[in-house]
Amino acid sequence: MKLPAGVSTKDFNAAMAAFRRIVGEQWVFTSDEDVALYRDAYSVSWDEADELVASAAVAPETVEQVQAVVRAANQHKIPLFAISTGKNLGYGGSAPNLSGSVIVDLKRMNKVIEVDDKRNFCIVEPGVSYFDLYRYIQERGLKVMMDIPDPGWGSPLGNALDHGVGYTWGEFRDHFGAHCGMEVVLPDGEVMRTGMAAVPGAKTWGENKYGYGPYVDGLFAQSNFGIVTKMGFWMMPEPEHFLSCQVSVPRYRDIVPLVDIVNYLEDQGLIGNPRYSSPLDLMTLMMEPERVQADQELLDMHARPGGASAEEFEKYARSRGMEYWRVLLNFYGPKETVYANWKYAQKKLAGIDGVKFEEVESYALPLDEATKKKVHHQVALGIPNMSIFSIGARSRVVPDPQDGHVWLGSIISRSGEELIKAHQVFGKAVQELGITPAIVGPFTAPAYWVHRTFIFMVPFFVSRSDKARNAKVREQYVKLVELAAQHGWTEYRTGPAFQDVVAKTYSFNDNALLKFRTRLKDAIDPNGIIAPGRGGIWPKRFRGKA
Amino acid sequence: MKLPAGVSTKDFNAAMAAFRRIVGEQWVFTSDEDVALYRDAYSVSWDEADELVASAAVAPETVEQVQAVVRAANQHKIPLFAISTGKNLGYGGSAPNLSGSVIVDLKRMNKVIEVDDKRNFCIVEPGVSYFDLYRYIQERGLKVMMDIPDPGWGSPLGNALDHGVGYTWGEFRDHFGAHCGMEVVLPDGEVMRTGMAAVPGAKTWGENKYGYGPYVDGLFAQSNFGIVTKMGFWMMPEPEHFLSCQVSVPRYRDIVPLVDIVNYLEDQGLIGNPRYSSPLDLMTLMMEPERVQADQELLDMHARPGGASAEEFEKYARSRGMEYWRVLLNFYGPKETVYANWKYAQKKLAGIDGVKFEEVESYALPLDEATKKKVHHQVALGIPNMSIFSIGARSRVVPDPQDGHVWLGSIISRSGEELIKAHQVFGKAVQELGITPAIVGPFTAPAYWVHRTFIFMVPFFVSRSDKARNAKVREQYVKLVELAAQHGWTEYRTGPAFQDVVAKTYSFNDNALLKFRTRLKDAIDPNGIIAPGRGGIWPKRFRGKA
Repeated sequence: MKLPAGVSTKDFNAAMAAFRRIVGEQWVFTSDEDVALYRDAYSVSWDEADELVASAAVAPETVEQVQAVVRAANQHKIPLFAISTGKNLGYGGSAPNLSGSVIVDLKRMNKVIEVDDKRNFCIVEPGVSYFDLYRYIQERGLKVMMDIPDPGWGSPLGNALDHGVGYTWGEFRDHFGAHCGMEVVLPDGEVMRTGMAAVPGAKTWGENKYGYGPYVDGLFAQSNFGIVTKMGFWMMPEPEHFLSCQVSVPRYRDIVPLVDIVNYLEDQGLIGNPRYSSPLDLMTLMMEPERVQADQELLDMHARPGGASAEEFEKYARSRGMEYWRVLLNFYGPKETVYANWKYAQKKLAGIDGVKFEEVESYALPLDEATKKKVHHQVALGIPNMSIFSIGARSRVVPDPQDGHVWLGSIISRSGEELIKAHQVFGKAVQELGITPAIVGPFTAPAYWVHRTFIFMVPFFVSRSDKARNAKVREQYVKLVELAAQHGWTEYRTGPAFQDVVAKTYSFNDNALLKFRTRLKDAIDPNGIIAPGRGGIWPKRFRGKA
Repeated sequence: MKLPAGVSTKDFNAAMAAFRRIVGEQWVFTSDEDVALYRDAYSVSWDEADELVASAAVAPETVEQVQAVVRAANQHKIPLFAISTGKNLGYGGSAPNLSGSVIVDLKRMNKVIEVDDKRNFCIVEPGVSYFDLYRYIQERGLKVMMDIPDPGWGSPLGNALDHGVGYTWGEFRDHFGAHCGMEVVLPDGEVMRTGMAAVPGAKTWGENKYGYGPYVDGLFAQSNFGIVTKMGFWMMPEPEHFLSCQVSVPRYRDIVPLVDIVNYLEDQGLIGNPRYSSPLDLMTLMMEPERVQADQELLDMHARPGGASAEEFEKYARSRGMEYWRVLLNFYGPKETVYANWKYAQKKLAGIDGVKFEEVESYALPLDEATKKKVHHQVALGIPNMSIFSIGARSRVVPDPQDGHVWLGSIISRSGEELIKAHQVFGKAVQELGITPAIVGPFTAPAYWVHRTFIFMVPFFVSRSDKARNAKVREQYVKLVELAAQHGWTEYRTGPAFQDVVAKTYSFNDNALLKFRTRLKDAIDPNGIIAPGRGGIWPKRFRGKA
C-alpha cells in the first residue's frame, strides 16, 4: 500500500477507522486486490514506481456520508479522489493524480432524481450510468432522447465533469454545457447547491442554469474544488424522425469548402454532430474495420516509412473510385423538416466537384426493439452500448495487439486549412518522434464532438510488459503537447500523468490562468484534501512536492 | 462628492492624481456635473442620502491602463465599479453598489477585434455597442446575424456580464452562455485570459469555450471578480429566410397545452424565441400600444380595485372575438425548412380547440434597407434599434407619466400551471402590497428570453419628486422578493439596491452558495477593490459596514 506523501500510517489508519464508522465496514476497501481495481488499466507507468495508485477506497451511499468522509479526511489530512462510474479509459482511468489518495467511489449513489419530458431535463446522482438512465426513461415511456458518448457504462455526471462529449446537437453533446445546476460537497464538508438548486422549494433546478450572481459551476469540472453529488441536465425532446446521410468528396483539398459549408449548416441548427472520416484513415481502420474496404496496397502505403503523401493517397482513392473525405450528416426533427434540411445541404454542397450524396438511414421514432439493434450508429440515437470500444485490438492493421492507449486531443480551428496544417505538423512530428504505429497523416479526419471545435486526435499505445515502450510514450506525449502548443493547439482533456504539462500550455501572461485557479484552490481547500493535482492545480501543501 | 466609506480625502486625491497620470487629465472626471452623468436615472432613492452614487470616474483606453488603474486603486484602497456602454435602465444604471466608488468607464475601449463568418464568432471590447458591431458587420458584408436585446446602445460584453438576453435561438439569446473566452484584469492588476484565449498564438479564442481545466468565466458575470476587457461570442450565421407566425388561443387555461407544445418545438431547435403575449395584458398596453386594440371596458376592468378575474377577461375576449393568449413563433433557416417547421407547429397545436394561425412576416435574407425599416420586430432579426423603450410614458393606460422603473424578474417553471400559480400569487400580492399601477394579473404573459426559463416580470415605478413613493417601492420590492422566494421563485437579475436581498434568496444550507462566493472574493481581492457588494458579495473590508 502506498500512502500519500507526508501522511503517517497512524493518521491513515485513524482515517480508515473513521470512514468505516461513516459508511460501514464493507464499504471501505484497503486490501491490495480491492485497491488494484482502481488502477488505470491503461497506465503509462504500469507497475513502475511512478504509477499513480490509490491507497484505499471508500464508497459512501448518501450526500451526508460524503460530507462526513470529507470532514474526516480534513481531520486526518488524507487526500481524496472522487470517481463516479464507468472507466475513463485512455484518460487516466480511476487512478488519482497523487499516489496514495483515497478513492471516493460514488457508484452507490445511483438514483435518478427526476426526468421531465415536458420541460426536458433530468437530475441524476454520480453513480447513474447512461445504461441506467436509458432504462429509466424507456421503462416510463418518457419522450426524451439522451446524448451519450461511446461507452454506455459511463456516468452522465462524471462524463460532464471531464468535459466529455456525445453525438447529437451541439447544445447537448457538450455535456458540461448541457448541465443545469449541481449539488457539491465542498472541501470543508459543507454541501452547496448552485443555480436554482440553491433555492429551497424551486422546481427549476433543471431549467435555469444561472440563478443570480456569479456562475460557479465551471469550477467543478476537470478540477478539484469539490465532490459533485447531483447534477441536472437539459435534454433533447424525442424528435419524430432521424435521418442520416453521407456526403463524399474526392480530393484532399475538398476538405476546405466541405468544412465551411458544414459549419454553416451546423451553426444554423440544421444538423447534429457532423461525423467526418476518411476511408484512407488508419484510425478508422483500427476502430471501425467494418466501415472500410482496405486492400493491401493501402496498408502498404501506411506501413511505408514516413507514410505516403496526400497526392499519393488521392491517386490511390481515385484509382479505386473511392472518396477522400466523407462526412455523415445527422438530421433530427419532423420528417418533412429533416428532408428539407438534407435537400438544402445537398444544394449548398453541390458546388464541390465530384461530391456524392447517399441516404444511409431514415427512421421514424421511437424505434422498436428490432430496429434499435440494426441501427448503424446507435449513439447518434442516444442508445447506450459498448460497440465502439476497441482501438489497438488485433487486426490486419495492428498485428500485435496493444495493451491500452492514451489520447492526445488537440483543439484546432474549425477550418480545412487548419486541418491541413495539422496534418503537416503532427504527421511530421509523429514520424520524427518515432510514435508507433504512426496513425496520423494527411488522411486524419477531425473529431467534431466538442461543439464548434475540431479536435485532432493522436493515440499513443502503451504496454503492460514493455516498460521501455511506456517510457518512450511518456516522453513522446510531452514533446507532442509542447510542439502542438507552439502552433496554438492545446488539449481539451488528458489523463493525470499529463495534466500538469497540458495545464501549463494555457500560458498567457506567465500562466495567469493557472495561478488564478491555484489561488482559488488554496482559499477553499487549505488542507489540500480534494484531488490534489487534478487539472494541474496543486494545493499549497503538495505544491512542488508531488 | 461622496467618498467611499473609510477613504480619506488625501488618499482619494492621491488616487485621482495617479489616475490622471495613467489616462491623462481629460479622462478623469471629478466635477459634480460629470459625476452626475453616472447616476442611475431610475434610482429608487433619487436625491436621498442612500442614493448610490459614484465619487468620480476614470476612462482608460487600453488594457494596460485598466491594469494601472487597478494597481493604483489597490495602493490607495479605492473601490472601483466598471461599466461598459449603454444605460442598464431598470437594473441600476451605471451607479455602483457602494457609494463613493470610482466608475471605470470602458466606453473608450471600443474595438471590434475580430468577426469571422466561416467559424461564426466575434471578439469585442467593452465599449463596442450593438450599433457599432452591426455597422462593422454590415460594412464588410459579413454573413452573421447578431442576437440583441431591446436597446441597441447596449454593449454585447456588458449585457452578457449582466446575464442579459435577446430574441433568436436559445443558444444565442443567452448572451453569457453564447460567450467564448475572455480577457480580464484581476483585482491585483494582473491580466488573465481564459479558454483558448489563454493560449499564445491560438486561433480558437472564439471557437472553444473551455480549453483545459476548471472553467472560471462564470465568476465574472453579475459579480466583482475582475474587469473584463475583451470577450468572444459565438454567432449565428445569417440564414436564408425568416418567418414569423402568430398562434392564438381563446381560453385562459389554453396556456397549459400551448406552453408544453411550444417547449417541444423550441427544445428541438425548430424555433427561436417564442414571444408570448396577451391582448388583455396591461404591460403590453403600456409598452407596445400599437399591438393592442383596447377599449374603455378593458381599461375599466383593469382599473377596478382588485382587478378582474380570469373568467371575466375570458368573457370579455370572447365577446370581442379576441384571443386570450398568443405566441409569436420565429423560424430561421432555409425557406423550405422554415415552412416545414411552421406546418409542423400547426399540426402539433391543432388539438387546442379554437386555435388560430397567422403568418405575420416572411423575408428572404439579407434584407434591403427599405425592408429593414418596415420589419415589425427588428430585434428578432438582429437589427439594433431603440424602438421598445418606453414603459410608463404617458398613455391611455398611464395618465400620469412615471419617472422611471425597476424590474423584478422571477424565474418560474416553464409550464402553464406554474404561470397560473404565479398569476394568483403575484396578482394577490401586488394588490395587498398596494403596488401601483397594479399591472400583473391573470393576463400576464411569461417573458421567455432566457433559454428554457420563464421570467415573470413585475415593474415598479419610481419618482424623481415623490420620496414617499420611492420609500414604498423599496419596501414593496423587498417584500415581493421574499414572498416569491417562499414559492421557489427568485430573480435572475436586479439593480444594486436589491442585490443583497436577491442573493440571499438562494439560501440552501444557510446560504452556502453566497458564502462560497464570498470566500473566493476575499482570496482574490483582499483589498476589496472591485465593485464591493455587486452580486451581493461584500469583500471583508466592507462586510457588515456598507
